[in-house]
Amino acid sequence: MSTAEADRLAALLKALAEPTRLRLLSLVAAHEGGEACVCDLTEPVGLSQPTVSHHLRILVDAGLLTRDKRGVWAYYRLVPERLAHAARALDPQRP
Amino acid sequence: MSTAEADRLAALLKALAEPTRLRLLSLVAAHEGGEACVCDLTEPVGLSQPTVSHHLRILVDAGLLTRDKRGVWAYYRLVPERLAHAARALDPQRP
Repeated sequence: MSTAEADRLAALLKALAEPTRLRLLSLVAAHEGGEACVCDLTEPVGLSQPTVSHHLRILVDAGLLTRDKRGVWAYYRLVPERLAHAARALDPQRP
Repeated sequence: MSTAEADRLAALLKALAEPTRLRLLSLVAAHEGGEACVCDLTEPVGLSQPTVSHHLRILVDAGLLTRDKRGVWAYYRLVPERLAHAARALDPQRP
């Protein structure tokens, strides 16, 4: 693995290596219609809206979620290809 | 994903989310006989032996490497099942 590849993969894994962010990804994916706003997520993770928004921003910056602003709220949706990319990079022998 | 599952997976990903550690895993796996001592690894990563040993210890603690002391040196070997576990946890839809 080259230094550049290691830097890129480490940055992606760092976005994932946090329990609340892993739960947010799972909650967004499981939410009705495959999307959720911050208002849907604060109660299940038991954290304030600013804290949840902070974690969501890190996941969007890492390409793991998309963010679509509609009216008052922003709606987040999982980018499954990005998780698949991380999984493949960790275990290239997988099909 | 439960809080306990998220805590466990985040701890494993935290061990992986560091460029030098990703390169060490790759170097150990690619080394002759599938194992390497710290003496084989300092030059390719360009870091001191104490720094490399520190990173190797984190990888052993996370179950990603085994450590086998033989004579003067300890020999490290990849645990591919542990990487496969991380990959599967990130992308459960994969076979």
